[in-house]
Amino acid sequence: MNIVSERKYYDSRIKKIFTRQNNHKTSNLIILKDENIYYLTGFYGKDSGSILLIADDDIHLLVNFIYLERARKSAKNKNLNIACYKKNKFGELVKILEDYSFSSIGVEGKNISLTGFRKLEKLLSGQGKKLVGIDGAVEKLRTVKDKFEISKIKNACKITDKVFGSIINSGAAAINKLSEIELACRIEELLVRNNSEGRSFDTIVAYEKNSSMPHYSPQKIKVKNGLILMDFGCKFENYCSDMTRTIFTKNKKICNEFKKIYDIVLKAQQLAIENCMEGVTCSQLDRIARKFITSKGYGNNFGHRLGHGVGIEVHEEPAVAMENRAVLMENMVITIEPGIYIENFGGVRIEDMVIVGKNNCEVLYNSKKSFFILD
Amino acid sequence: MNIVSERKYYDSRIKKIFTRQNNHKTSNLIILKDENIYYLTGFYGKDSGSILLIADDDIHLLVNFIYLERARKSAKNKNLNIACYKKNKFGELVKILEDYSFSSIGVEGKNISLTGFRKLEKLLSGQGKKLVGIDGAVEKLRTVKDKFEISKIKNACKITDKVFGSIINSGAAAINKLSEIELACRIEELLVRNNSEGRSFDTIVAYEKNSSMPHYSPQKIKVKNGLILMDFGCKFENYCSDMTRTIFTKNKKICNEFKKIYDIVLKAQQLAIENCMEGVTCSQLDRIARKFITSKGYGNNFGHRLGHGVGIEVHEEPAVAMENRAVLMENMVITIEPGIYIENFGGVRIEDMVIVGKNNCEVLYNSKKSFFILD
Repeated sequence: MNIVSERKYYDSRIKKIFTRQNNHKTSNLIILKDENIYYLTGFYGKDSGSILLIADDDIHLLVNFIYLERARKSAKNKNLNIACYKKNKFGELVKILEDYSFSSIGVEGKNISLTGFRKLEKLLSGQGKKLVGIDGAVEKLRTVKDKFEISKIKNACKITDKVFGSIINSGAAAINKLSEIELACRIEELLVRNNSEGRSFDTIVAYEKNSSMPHYSPQKIKVKNGLILMDFGCKFENYCSDMTRTIFTKNKKICNEFKKIYDIVLKAQQLAIENCMEGVTCSQLDRIARKFITSKGYGNNFGHRLGHGVGIEVHEEPAVAMENRAVLMENMVITIEPGIYIENFGGVRIEDMVIVGKNNCEVLYNSKKSFFILD
Repeated sequence: MNIVSERKYYDSRIKKIFTRQNNHKTSNLIILKDENIYYLTGFYGKDSGSILLIADDDIHLLVNFIYLERARKSAKNKNLNIACYKKNKFGELVKILEDYSFSSIGVEGKNISLTGFRKLEKLLSGQGKKLVGIDGAVEKLRTVKDKFEISKIKNACKITDKVFGSIINSGAAAINKLSEIELACRIEELLVRNNSEGRSFDTIVAYEKNSSMPHYSPQKIKVKNGLILMDFGCKFENYCSDMTRTIFTKNKKICNEFKKIYDIVLKAQQLAIENCMEGVTCSQLDRIARKFITSKGYGNNFGHRLGHGVGIEVHEEPAVAMENRAVLMENMVITIEPGIYIENFGGVRIEDMVIVGKNNCEVLYNSKKSFFILD
């Protein structure tokens, strides 16, 4: 894509924010989340403390001194004012705002700390401007992906599939030589070798009973014959993938104990995939998988939501959770990842990413899901 | 260390918080930062959304369902009540607080979002409890390390030294075959192989002019003959290391252009190290390095603070920055990392970790710092 058409892209997103915000009766907004700023400008300064200001018809990007060069190179909007601060970002922001006469401005309430809000509120009160917390303006826009984004996500998923294939093809003997943390490292190295920009989150490798902790961190424990849960993903041009597979090596006795719960999780996942389409609510989709797992007696062992949106962030809106009544829409990208976790025994999770369609969904992985014991 | 003596450790930290808070006229505190909770309990649920409540003489740890098993296994305090929530953590917290009659409670203001604060404030108002933002209670306590912590940090630094040695020993020919991102991956793999728990932050490898961006992310660009800036670290038993070295391979012409700024940065770093001891303020230490760099004409090219504390987090208090008047104390662990960055040309940064002593400081790395061209 050339610069002119890329620029149009970002400018049209900003325009949508303007329109959306006008409906909310404030046309001015302070955006603090790095991923939201990237979505609207093309500049991605992870943990950079940058600020995007939409004020009247102007757009200002304020970055820390050390990100200035990168911001100039990567921000794409047509009429973007780029400025930098050395220490006091809110002080610098307030200086820019002196030129505007409006009396109220929004700030991302989930993305500013209480302490930060109080500080900025005080500074702005000197200009007679009221600061108001506003949530989800950009996040909601980001849930439905365009073709440009979907193509990046598909590439990230393709790489993820390939890496899982390489791990499986290396065979049980090679895997059994590694510790959880070494296997995680191997996966991350393969993600890079296969042309991604690296992991999208810290890889989880959990062996046997460690797998009963859904957010486990890999340890120096050998993964020798038994259940291995792998949850990993990569980034491709700043878009994420996320996949989980639970595999079994050699030890038939242990593996067969897990087969029953594996097949329940798989069936629950397939049911959710079959019912995933535009018009279904997140709550409904979660309930379909949960109801099945509950009917098999494991309802209390599925202690997390069914899934989440994936895009610039590996976890983003919508939350595919019981309490979320948001309706799925065409071109949303979400994970479907039921699990059953039994303390001191182990856990099974199977996770795919899908693109929501009008009447069905497209699964983005081809990696094997049926139960098998790797030799 | 056995469980009983470990328990004493965590209990004594909690006691210090009680005392500190009593001085601030609220003895009740809601702690949200995962690293603060780990410091006080031994349970570390990164991004787990856990809550530690200190209320009257009681301590409650509230974790998401999926972290319950890990919390039970790792939290060490003597009289700790562990509870879990499924979705609504603030709802569950407020239920626990029903049993207490105090009229005001603190919450970590930097670690709660505005939206979260407003929600919790509303829930507590039903009980007639006022919610107050309080900052830095645990963070300040964490700045001075005990022997237990220092020993972990030293191990992390030793591993970091060893990995840098391995990279250098592999020689220019081996390094030149890799892209920035592959070299970063190689470093991270070596950190694991050398018995760490992996990287403490995403490794930076910046080649040539990319090094002028201090917070650069490695790309698929070959690091072929020239300047390579490497900024990396690992975790050992949850404690971090952080080191930067700027090395040069083969191309003598390019390398010699950098020699001048390299020697200025190195001299600035040495000056700061010589002056680093108890009683000096962060501001003073920063100024010593900055003044030297400015005297050589590069003051505007050193756009970040001199350093930062390191411990459970790779960046923690104190900020070794111009605007921080906090006094350095014995057994604080900080980085000293001046740099000079020239847009479209390149940058040099040299970073060590040190333990502040009574009359000097102990540098925690042995890796070579003088300018050399690797063959």
